[in-house]
Amino acid sequence: MADKPKKPQKLRARLPRGLGDRGPADIAATRRMTDTIREVYERYGFEPVETPTMEFTDALGKFLPDQDRPNEGVFSFQDDDEQWISLRYDLTAPLARYVAEHWDALPKPYRSYRAGYVYRNEKPGPGRFRQFMQFDADTVGSGSPAADAEMCMMAADTMEALGIPRGSYVVRVNNRKVLDGVMESIGLGGDDQAGRRLTVLRAIDKMDKFPVDEIKKLLGPGRWDGGEEGKGDFTKGAGLSLEDAETVLRSLDAASEATDKLNSSEAYKQGRAELDEIGKLITAAGYGEDRIKIDPSVVRGLEYYTGPVYEVELTLETKDEKGRPVRFGSVGGGGRYDGLVSRFRGEPVPATGFSIGVSRLQAALTLLGKIDTQQQPGPVVVTVFGGEIADYQAMVAKLRSAGIRAELYLGNPKHALGQQMKYADKRNSPLAIIQGSDEKAGGKLLIKDLIAGAGLTEIKDREEYLKKQADAQIEIAESDLVSTVKTLLVKHGVSWSA
Amino acid sequence: MADKPKKPQKLRARLPRGLGDRGPADIAATRRMTDTIREVYERYGFEPVETPTMEFTDALGKFLPDQDRPNEGVFSFQDDDEQWISLRYDLTAPLARYVAEHWDALPKPYRSYRAGYVYRNEKPGPGRFRQFMQFDADTVGSGSPAADAEMCMMAADTMEALGIPRGSYVVRVNNRKVLDGVMESIGLGGDDQAGRRLTVLRAIDKMDKFPVDEIKKLLGPGRWDGGEEGKGDFTKGAGLSLEDAETVLRSLDAASEATDKLNSSEAYKQGRAELDEIGKLITAAGYGEDRIKIDPSVVRGLEYYTGPVYEVELTLETKDEKGRPVRFGSVGGGGRYDGLVSRFRGEPVPATGFSIGVSRLQAALTLLGKIDTQQQPGPVVVTVFGGEIADYQAMVAKLRSAGIRAELYLGNPKHALGQQMKYADKRNSPLAIIQGSDEKAGGKLLIKDLIAGAGLTEIKDREEYLKKQADAQIEIAESDLVSTVKTLLVKHGVSWSA
Repeated sequence: MADKPKKPQKLRARLPRGLGDRGPADIAATRRMTDTIREVYERYGFEPVETPTMEFTDALGKFLPDQDRPNEGVFSFQDDDEQWISLRYDLTAPLARYVAEHWDALPKPYRSYRAGYVYRNEKPGPGRFRQFMQFDADTVGSGSPAADAEMCMMAADTMEALGIPRGSYVVRVNNRKVLDGVMESIGLGGDDQAGRRLTVLRAIDKMDKFPVDEIKKLLGPGRWDGGEEGKGDFTKGAGLSLEDAETVLRSLDAASEATDKLNSSEAYKQGRAELDEIGKLITAAGYGEDRIKIDPSVVRGLEYYTGPVYEVELTLETKDEKGRPVRFGSVGGGGRYDGLVSRFRGEPVPATGFSIGVSRLQAALTLLGKIDTQQQPGPVVVTVFGGEIADYQAMVAKLRSAGIRAELYLGNPKHALGQQMKYADKRNSPLAIIQGSDEKAGGKLLIKDLIAGAGLTEIKDREEYLKKQADAQIEIAESDLVSTVKTLLVKHGVSWSA
Repeated sequence: MADKPKKPQKLRARLPRGLGDRGPADIAATRRMTDTIREVYERYGFEPVETPTMEFTDALGKFLPDQDRPNEGVFSFQDDDEQWISLRYDLTAPLARYVAEHWDALPKPYRSYRAGYVYRNEKPGPGRFRQFMQFDADTVGSGSPAADAEMCMMAADTMEALGIPRGSYVVRVNNRKVLDGVMESIGLGGDDQAGRRLTVLRAIDKMDKFPVDEIKKLLGPGRWDGGEEGKGDFTKGAGLSLEDAETVLRSLDAASEATDKLNSSEAYKQGRAELDEIGKLITAAGYGEDRIKIDPSVVRGLEYYTGPVYEVELTLETKDEKGRPVRFGSVGGGGRYDGLVSRFRGEPVPATGFSIGVSRLQAALTLLGKIDTQQQPGPVVVTVFGGEIADYQAMVAKLRSAGIRAELYLGNPKHALGQQMKYADKRNSPLAIIQGSDEKAGGKLLIKDLIAGAGLTEIKDREEYLKKQADAQIEIAESDLVSTVKTLLVKHGVSWSA
């Protein structure tokens, strides 16, 4: 850090790209969402566990879909003993480390859940952030398709608990082994082809983003971002022949029959059998195709998946930046990662997990009108109007002791009452308390009802205006402060703590 | 990252020093605590706002008490455009950036709160972590001592809301200006003495850790960790004469009179006046010295404080590593930082804030028995006993639909019933469901009541044993599954969601 620049005279207040602040409505919505998700996960028998924000870089491993930029994708720094530490890029890799470290103490199978921020050192874009929240559930120590089926059912239940109606979402299930069978059939089997297989998978994964012709480019020679050669960024392709590319694309159609060539692949047959078992379990538990559906085009971008993979898609339509209708798309997903814990254990440890993109799902719920975006009522504001601050402060303390949200105006005490009222308006306060010297002398105070007063200027009828005006400011005995405030809050449907 | 080491064959599952994982009881306790704190802060009119984990390094500034190791204390890395980014080391510096960035949109004064993890790149030790949670509240845009008084009252209310009885905590208040006056009186006034002033402050701040003689060393020539010269680490002292060191120490006694020399300092007089005003306000609001107390020995280690500083101390006794009784000490604090927002605004912006060390406070509450550390009841476990997995899975789905925590045994379905029961015990399950082929044929199933069965082996009386044994395993009609499970859960006081 020797070449860190000197502080300028006046700093500019700004955040690094891809990071954002969160206000009250956003925070409240996230809390309600995560409370609901937690309730469903608990009902499924999962228990909470949390790991820290950072881990040894080698413990996290490199599984992000960022092969064009090796050593990127994660935020890393060297500790004072030269060891590399990284911010977690997901919640699965840290869980694998946790389970391996605490193996003997944990019940097996081990069901756990956690919500937390993850970090990606990527080029941020619209809707793409470098810090975002995930909510994960994992079952470690079970190789049973019943564990995968359970994840899919839990995903469906979670969507409905969050208020997304049946028919507006679908959990799509596939199996990496089926995809591996397809790869074998076009000569991409074997360890030495792992890189190309991944490129093919990532091309398939873009099926919901690009038209088929663009996917063909990604399967074949590669694709230019700008639409023609030399324009925009270039994404290297998998180098498949046109025929092989078409074989891959055909295999993504659920209706297409398995060829003899495919059926000769052990991976393919095992993958199909697991999918059949999952299908049987979800049907027996009463989940129809309107909720969970086997779909051969599901991939999931992460490298560590080894069996069933699943994705929750919102089928509701929204508009893209050009105003064209598009499906909202994926808000979560996961799959089986049998190799991740065994990196530490040196023995096979089957595991499957599901991750919700909280921020993305929250955007969807807002779009669906399932999130209350109304500004919440603010505190009662006690204004300062010529008297002793300590007296006004004592009123505030009385209101707070009764559980009522209240505050003293802490701006300059010489500010005009109008400016203090403007502040109360900005806080969305339901009531303001005023006590000038006259009121003080008579043991009285004034309550300005800001909700009743809000519509005042729009009233044309003189009598109605006078009546409303009388409602909007009332004089009471100082000793009636708490009881009158409570009556008015009840009238306006504003709650307080007991 | 070019010199990152190659992955070893089998990774060791471990965390970097000073970081920890959190289990269910820990997570639940933190949630209950933060819910309670949030309720108090809301009642005081504060609203939530959250900033991201990282910020530009220059925006955070360097205010940590780590002057011996410049450029350390924070985790930093360079972004791809060469700009330095750091993980936040507290929640105050990011708030200052936030307020400056959104100045025009915010109500002023602006009251806000937030909980979040902060990161310190320090040598970890017992009870010292490199990631820990803080819960902050700040009022920006008010220079009034009423804003500081409010923080102190809120701190007291929070402690009591968390179940800490009056008398077991105290909020101690001082003023940096008073301390500055003391400095002036020993010739440490002026900008060029800022470094030595800070050293003096940090020495005073160690009053609760070390005996007076050790503090004298820190005020004077310096102090060896190991007790004598050359032993352990050396902490540089402030270089005061013995006389000046004693003047400083005398000024920390609340009962000592202000000397004429002190009263000639403008800073001292202003500081005293502010403390008097705070005292008046808290008294008027009904807070006595048993809750909030003016105390000249309070310092707070952070460099950015400019006026009133306050600290919440738990006065309950605990034991140190050698079994000697010690006070639990500070669980939070804060103060006025009028210079922090103005770094961005180029104009004075008064501000005051309060921060709770959540992890430390949680340790204290556990010690006080205010945190339920009992293992919560686990889910109902449906065992797999020779039948179709899909049938058992369907039972689980029925229980879950009724809001009951339930899960299928996902270990090897061929595991003996005994092993499955051991799993249910490890999960602390109240009930286990069993259906063999006989029960299946008769439309029946068995419920094992693991709570009723728990005391079974201790019973000596034969008749009682048989009765209890009968209670511990009952046969019911398959169709009565949900209703019987609910009856048994009620009997054992286990709740479920509606």
